[in-house]
Amino acid sequence: MLVRPKEGILDPQGEAVGGSLRRLAFPVTQARVGRLVELELETTDAVAARAQIERMCAELLANPLIESVEIQLEGDV
Amino acid sequence: MLVRPKEGILDPQGEAVGGSLRRLAFPVTQARVGRLVELELETTDAVAARAQIERMCAELLANPLIESVEIQLEGDV
Repeated sequence: MLVRPKEGILDPQGEAVGGSLRRLAFPVTQARVGRLVELELETTDAVAARAQIERMCAELLANPLIESVEIQLEGDV
Repeated sequence: MLVRPKEGILDPQGEAVGGSLRRLAFPVTQARVGRLVELELETTDAVAARAQIERMCAELLANPLIESVEIQLEGDV
């Protein structure tokens, strides 16, 4: 699962990374920093897996006010 | 770019996420947490872009001792 700061939301970590890279003379016009969360689930059903991950995001893994979540399934699902 | 803790390297953030999810009764067997870094570069040449990103990783963005990096290019490259 990829968790990104939403468009228009301040991303201080991305600003810091972008600034540091430009100071190192890398031609970076924008940098955004998010999280990668990789989970192994017991279910092998894609619909169930997606529903579980959406509940995990709502309860723990992401802040829907400021973050957007992209769910990618792989393996046996 | 996706930055993951290398296989076999302790991932305390992933352990914490996995433990919290299990306490919330989610059937998660493993959780790993990494970083997502999205960069906009001035170049539109894929080979140049990849070479730049590899240098950025070596100089700033990742610790090759404990992290592995997966580079994905998109857009005009």
